Amino acid sequence: MNGAESLVHTLVKSGLKTCFANPGTSEMHFVAALDRIPGLRCVLGLQENIVTGMADGYWRMSGRPAATLLHCGPGLANGLANLHNARRARSGIVNIVGDQATYHRPYDAQLTADTEGWARPVSAWVRTATDSRRVGQDAAVAVQAARTAPGGIATLILPADTAWNEGGEPAEALPVPAIQPPDPHAVRGAARLLREKRNVLILLGGPALRAEAQALAHRIATATGARVLAEMSNARVERGRGRLQLERVPYPVDAAVEALKDVEHLILVNSKAPVGFFAYPGKPSLHYPEGATVHPLTRYEEDCIAGLRALAEELGAPEVAVPDPGPRPEVARGAPTPEGLARTLAAVMPEGAIITDESVSFGRGFYPHTHAAPPHDWLQITGGAIGCGMPLATGAAIGAGGDRRVINLQADGSGMYTLQALWTQAREKLPVTTIILSNRKYQILIGEYQNVGANPGPTAMSMLDLGNPDLDWLQLAQGMGVEAARATTLEQCGDLLAQSCASNAPFLIELMI
Amino acid sequence: MNGAESLVHTLVKSGLKTCFANPGTSEMHFVAALDRIPGLRCVLGLQENIVTGMADGYWRMSGRPAATLLHCGPGLANGLANLHNARRARSGIVNIVGDQATYHRPYDAQLTADTEGWARPVSAWVRTATDSRRVGQDAAVAVQAARTAPGGIATLILPADTAWNEGGEPAEALPVPAIQPPDPHAVRGAARLLREKRNVLILLGGPALRAEAQALAHRIATATGARVLAEMSNARVERGRGRLQLERVPYPVDAAVEALKDVEHLILVNSKAPVGFFAYPGKPSLHYPEGATVHPLTRYEEDCIAGLRALAEELGAPEVAVPDPGPRPEVARGAPTPEGLARTLAAVMPEGAIITDESVSFGRGFYPHTHAAPPHDWLQITGGAIGCGMPLATGAAIGAGGDRRVINLQADGSGMYTLQALWTQAREKLPVTTIILSNRKYQILIGEYQNVGANPGPTAMSMLDLGNPDLDWLQLAQGMGVEAARATTLEQCGDLLAQSCASNAPFLIELMI
Repeated sequence: MNGAESLVHTLVKSGLKTCFANPGTSEMHFVAALDRIPGLRCVLGLQENIVTGMADGYWRMSGRPAATLLHCGPGLANGLANLHNARRARSGIVNIVGDQATYHRPYDAQLTADTEGWARPVSAWVRTATDSRRVGQDAAVAVQAARTAPGGIATLILPADTAWNEGGEPAEALPVPAIQPPDPHAVRGAARLLREKRNVLILLGGPALRAEAQALAHRIATATGARVLAEMSNARVERGRGRLQLERVPYPVDAAVEALKDVEHLILVNSKAPVGFFAYPGKPSLHYPEGATVHPLTRYEEDCIAGLRALAEELGAPEVAVPDPGPRPEVARGAPTPEGLARTLAAVMPEGAIITDESVSFGRGFYPHTHAAPPHDWLQITGGAIGCGMPLATGAAIGAGGDRRVINLQADGSGMYTLQALWTQAREKLPVTTIILSNRKYQILIGEYQNVGANPGPTAMSMLDLGNPDLDWLQLAQGMGVEAARATTLEQCGDLLAQSCASNAPFLIELMI
Repeated sequence: MNGAESLVHTLVKSGLKTCFANPGTSEMHFVAALDRIPGLRCVLGLQENIVTGMADGYWRMSGRPAATLLHCGPGLANGLANLHNARRARSGIVNIVGDQATYHRPYDAQLTADTEGWARPVSAWVRTATDSRRVGQDAAVAVQAARTAPGGIATLILPADTAWNEGGEPAEALPVPAIQPPDPHAVRGAARLLREKRNVLILLGGPALRAEAQALAHRIATATGARVLAEMSNARVERGRGRLQLERVPYPVDAAVEALKDVEHLILVNSKAPVGFFAYPGKPSLHYPEGATVHPLTRYEEDCIAGLRALAEELGAPEVAVPDPGPRPEVARGAPTPEGLARTLAAVMPEGAIITDESVSFGRGFYPHTHAAPPHDWLQITGGAIGCGMPLATGAAIGAGGDRRVINLQADGSGMYTLQALWTQAREKLPVTTIILSNRKYQILIGEYQNVGANPGPTAMSMLDLGNPDLDWLQLAQGMGVEAARATTLEQCGDLLAQSCASNAPFLIELMI
């Protein structure tokens, strides 16, 4: 058995089911092993940022790491932006990066690059295999690293000779370290704050945004008068009827500072105290008052459900139902507005829908209008590296098992970064509806430019405007095998969305905004 | 004057004319400065690997570094693959990478990443600006680094506050260190070898592939009986009638070893002794005989023209004309073959054409059939990171002044990596004809798979096949504003190519192979 075969056997033994791939020459023995050894579904992405973004979406919906198959340093480099987003989402991923044979590396052939150097900034764990006889063990440790709470990126670099040499030995799955229990001192400290202080904010992040944790947080808040908010950007929020009507910390500095101005005590539940996405001249980096105390209830590697439950019990907080969100909105009519699109979405989305949200500037206000939608999941771009939405939607569809409709709210400028994901949606026949928010400009940047103090002139607009020529998203989608239609009104958008949800195929709506 | 303004003034003073850009929030002050201060043409790319690939093509045709404008670590990461290719081409580029404000970086906001860490492996020079008052000086040093022979990548990271703070001072251009003269010992040693030994190969790379150097190498070879070859992958070769009928070291290991088996002495002229692109089991890493002596005539930082001239004079080699390549081929007919396409290209290309070649497996034999074409330039993918062709063609068109036809020979799988470049071709109205070699598979990898010893099964083919669904390149091109047509025969391809060369607009031909 060669090293590549021991690798595939080990990944299968370790519970992996899926490999997102864009292979090259140095990975041919791995590809051959995948061909011979059943157990891993292989999904091709036409560029590596599609591959890594799919692995992120897959983890967020399945809780299981996927393998990626990438080609040498530059192939990894192409996928770094979505690995950056995945790192910020704390997603577990096992990257397998093929590379030059160990003895060939010193010759510095054209494709030789600093693969480890590029991997390190996004990886919780990096190793370059050195011997085919230990590749199985290397892979088992990689999967363990990816699965260790809260989830992390493990990158195993596989020089070609460690794949093709004989002597490979499949390794058994290593135990995943149990998630750490909450710190009792932190629980008692939080309880004391909540009993004794006013203006306490409970900030939820990561797994604290699943329904069970939300209900516990609501129980605590109801008993104590504390507020509950979600972080600004979240890997996955369980939302809709039966879930808490959570709001997020706003993105714009002024709005965030206003929203948090009364906070005196901040209890963090797998979250981080809010800071600006960027700094701006004369504006604060911290979005909460400088004098506020910050109290972590549970850290990323700790069990937030147990922490919240212990806190609720410590407080003697009674059980309480989450509030009813009122009637489900109806499809809006006329020219697209953010509120109208959000209401249309709430009106049409099926129960169990997965919303992936790279709507950027247009979508900041979608939350309040979708609380009364059926239960659904909402996945955001977590690291700010645009080009996340389409691959995330694709991977989420696969990670959720293929029978839940994914609706990807996609800004056009960001969508152009990774449009190749549409082809994978067509090939894998995935139930993904992409709504392109087509304003033909980098609208967020025009706003930022105006904040600098002027309206953009012709040179600036040459870098901020996506017209001239206009992108035709129908042709782009159809060119990759995805059916598409254009909508100029919300009722058209609602009709197309409803039609697409009734099918199993991918579909794209270019919504002219 | 703020730091960003001092930066733009300094870039202009240092002779830069062009900025390839994909900006974000942290670069708004730089964008505003570009808007206010004339002198830099700003060209938008819809993803950063387009931006960096354009800068590479621009340098190769103009010999002048362009600036790139990239957004934070992930924006740089998106452009690393084509920076890797540019590094291997030894192209000069000045990357300006906006980043978090210096005082905001410790807060580790979502988009914060290890920008320097990602930049280092591709950069000859990296600096993070720390003070708006010194940004001008930083920029002048960056341009100097990019221009120092043979050319290099300089990356200046610009924290947002160093752009917006006042006190900026434009810096004068720094002198570019003169290219180093050849080492007289190396010249005399090469002359001795050529006089006394047989089976000497002169291997040309980099600027030694321009016409003047070729003519000198031919003069030396004619006088001494040495062979002359080009390296396998070259940034720019001046070819066609009046230039030397150079062949390249072949890509496949067996062919390369066969071509070099009689070499006893290797004289390197801005080149590197040939090694395998990849290692293969049981095949050598070195493609020349182990016992051969390797003698560098000129190194990358040295003047190869002066070196070759000194060598010709040392040898007393008489002036000699380069051989006539015979009659110009005619357009081939019928089903596309590599030879037929090469002959069609030679028949139709206008004088002064620029060929960018990412034809991968289909195009390896194009050289012999295009010697009798009119004088033209041939640009290859130099680092093996696919997705180079379309951005390279776009930047080459701009770097050549906009009046020379660029013909991009583009494998379909690689083309999908950076198809967004077509939009920039349409926006800038560039004379680029893209010929997509549409075989709907990663053909090179199917060959490599078969070399591993088997035919690919269904799982392997799911990662090697680009059909299901077929890509429709006409719709993809038209969706980005580029006219396109399909050809199934060489005469159709020849007609479409001729038509496109008669216009000033971009055009795409999907050639079904």
